[in-house]
Amino acid sequence: MIFEDYAIFTPGPVKMSEEILQIGAKQTPYFRNSEFSDVAFSCENNLLEMVNAPEGSKVIFLTASGTAGMESAVMNLLTENDNALVVNGGGFGQRFVDICATHKIPHTNFKVKDTNLTEIENLAPDENHTALVVNAHETSVGHLYNLDAMGEYAAKNKMLYIVDAISMLVTDPLDMQQSKIDVVIASSQKGLALPPGLTMVILTPKAIEKLQDINSLYFNFKDYLKNGERGQTPYTPAVTIMLQLEARLNQIKKRGGIEQSIANAKEVADYFRESIKALPLKEYTPYMPNAMTTLTPTDGKSAMEIVNALEADYKVMVCPNGGAERELVFRVSHMGEMTKTYTDIVINALHDYYGVTRA
Amino acid sequence: MIFEDYAIFTPGPVKMSEEILQIGAKQTPYFRNSEFSDVAFSCENNLLEMVNAPEGSKVIFLTASGTAGMESAVMNLLTENDNALVVNGGGFGQRFVDICATHKIPHTNFKVKDTNLTEIENLAPDENHTALVVNAHETSVGHLYNLDAMGEYAAKNKMLYIVDAISMLVTDPLDMQQSKIDVVIASSQKGLALPPGLTMVILTPKAIEKLQDINSLYFNFKDYLKNGERGQTPYTPAVTIMLQLEARLNQIKKRGGIEQSIANAKEVADYFRESIKALPLKEYTPYMPNAMTTLTPTDGKSAMEIVNALEADYKVMVCPNGGAERELVFRVSHMGEMTKTYTDIVINALHDYYGVTRA
Repeated sequence: MIFEDYAIFTPGPVKMSEEILQIGAKQTPYFRNSEFSDVAFSCENNLLEMVNAPEGSKVIFLTASGTAGMESAVMNLLTENDNALVVNGGGFGQRFVDICATHKIPHTNFKVKDTNLTEIENLAPDENHTALVVNAHETSVGHLYNLDAMGEYAAKNKMLYIVDAISMLVTDPLDMQQSKIDVVIASSQKGLALPPGLTMVILTPKAIEKLQDINSLYFNFKDYLKNGERGQTPYTPAVTIMLQLEARLNQIKKRGGIEQSIANAKEVADYFRESIKALPLKEYTPYMPNAMTTLTPTDGKSAMEIVNALEADYKVMVCPNGGAERELVFRVSHMGEMTKTYTDIVINALHDYYGVTRA
Repeated sequence: MIFEDYAIFTPGPVKMSEEILQIGAKQTPYFRNSEFSDVAFSCENNLLEMVNAPEGSKVIFLTASGTAGMESAVMNLLTENDNALVVNGGGFGQRFVDICATHKIPHTNFKVKDTNLTEIENLAPDENHTALVVNAHETSVGHLYNLDAMGEYAAKNKMLYIVDAISMLVTDPLDMQQSKIDVVIASSQKGLALPPGLTMVILTPKAIEKLQDINSLYFNFKDYLKNGERGQTPYTPAVTIMLQLEARLNQIKKRGGIEQSIANAKEVADYFRESIKALPLKEYTPYMPNAMTTLTPTDGKSAMEIVNALEADYKVMVCPNGGAERELVFRVSHMGEMTKTYTDIVINALHDYYGVTRA
C-alpha cells in the first residue's frame, strides 16, 4: 500500500475518519432492494438539508468523478439557445469553458483575477446571458468567490445559477436558498472526506424544470430522477461510497451540524496561517477558503522543491500546482479529518525545512 | 451497515476476499505522482496479460460503472458511417441497442434466442456491417455466446469486434488474440470482485487506430490514452478501487493464474448445478457460463417468491430477474470469493425451502 504512513494535506483525496474507513472494509451489499433505497434517501435528505436546498429539490448520484458532474450538469441544463457566463479564474473555470465549447453551448469566457466577484454587477460583460456557471472555490489557486453577490446578480438577470461546490462543501458556507443557487455539484473526495468515485448534482425545482432530453444514457438526469423516486439509480451506483456518505452525513450531524464542521475548518485554517507567519511564504490570494491555503515562496525558492522536500524528508503530502504556476505556488488542504494537532505536522515540517524555530 | 451477515450470491456486487476488503479501509493516497502511476501501469499490464491482448493494446480506466464503459466504447469507436450488428439476447444487449440509437449509430438489432451464435454465419442478417457488438455473457438471462465463432465471423467480414466481458471475466475464458477481439469492456464489481465504480475498456492497436474525436470530456478516450502514457487519468480516478485492482490481479496470479480462477469457478458452478438436481428447478439455458446459474421453477412456484424466502428465512441473497421474467427466473452467482463450502449455504437453503433432504 502506497503512502500509508504519510500525513496527507492534499486537496483530494483528504484525510478520512476511522469510522468511514472501516465501512470500506465491509462486503459490498446487494443494492436493488428497499434497504439500499433507504440509504440513498438518507443521503439525499441529509445533503439537501446540509445545503438548505429549496423544497422539492433532488439529488442525482453519479458513479463518476467531479468533472462528470460538471459536464453532465451543462449537458442536461444548457442548450444552443443558452448563453452562459462562465467564471474563469483558473484551471477549473477553464474546464467549464471547455465543457461548454465541447457541447456547443454559447458562452462567454469571463476571465477574472484578484476579485471575489462581490462587484460582479460592474465586472461582468454587459451581454444577455441565460446562465451563470462558476466554481465556488477555484481549487487551482485557492480562490473563493462571493456566492451571495453572484446569486443576486443571476436572479436579477434571470440566469440559471450553476455552482460547482466540489472543493468547498463542508468546510465553507453554502446555502442554496440564501445564495439563490439553482444547481450544486458536489463530489465525494473533498470536504466530504470519502474515497473518490461519487459525484452528486443537486437540482432545485427550477433546474428540474429546465432539464433537457439529451443524447446520453449514462448522464441522462431524467432517468436518474425517475429511478430516484424509489431510491435507486439507473446503473450500478458506487454502493460502498454511498454507504460511507450516509455515515459521513450522520457524523457531521452528530458533531454539531454543518455549522460546526465549517467552524472547525476555519479554526484549523486560521491556526495554520497564523502559525507559519514567520516563514518566507505569502498567501497567494486574499479570498482564501477554509478548505485550503495557497502559498507562494517569497525568497525565490521553487514551490515544487518545497513540495518534494516535504514528501521526501518529512513524509508530508502537500499539493503542487500544475502548469506555469508549478514553481510559484503550492497548496495545503484543511479538508477532511483535520485537527490543530494533525496540522502541527505540516507546520513543524515547514519550520524545520526552513531552519526556523517555531514561535 | 446493511446485510453484513448475509451470504451473497448476486451477480454483482459479489463476495470479496478479505485481502481486498482490507485495502478499502486504508486512507486513500494522493495519486498525482509516480507511485500511483506504477499502480496504474501494474493494473494495465496484468489486465492485458490476463486477456491475452495483442502487443500495443492499452487500457482506459474510467471512474464509472459498466454502462459508461459500454456507452463510451460506442461513442469513441463508431460513427454515423458505421453499421453495427448488435447482438440482443436480453437486457444488456438491448442496452447496446439503446446506446447506438441514442448516439445515432446505424445498427441492426440482432435479436437472438436459444443459440450461442456458433452458427452466426447462418443466423446473422446478410447486410454490410462494420462492427459486431456483443455482451459475451448476457447477464440478464445467464447466456454465454461463442466468442471464437463471432470473432471468426467479424474478422472475415472486416468488422470491429466489441465485446462487453463485464460479467464473465475471471470466471470464463476470454482470449483477445484467439477470439480476434478488438475491444473488451470490463468492470470492477463482477468477476474481479471489487467494489463497483471502476470500468475498464481494453483497446487493441486496431481499435486505437479507429478512435474518433468526440464531443465529450469525461469519455474522451484520446485524452485517457495521452494521460495513460504516464500512468495517469485526465480526471480523478477511483483511487481506492485501483489499489484493490492491483492487489486482486496479483492475487489471481498467486493463486495459479487466470486459468486456475476459471477452473475454480467452473468447479463451483458444476458443484452447485449437480447438488440441486433433486429440486424442482430447471436450468434456464444450455449455454450457461461459470459465472452464474439461471434457474426456472418447474413446479409453478414464483421465482420472486423463492428469492424473497431465501433472503428473509435464510439470509441468502440471490438475484431476481427484472420485467416479465421476474416470476419465472432467478440467478445464483458463482463470481468472486466462492468455494464449495460457501456455496453449500445456498444449496442447503434451497433444499430446506423445498423440504427436500439433500442427497
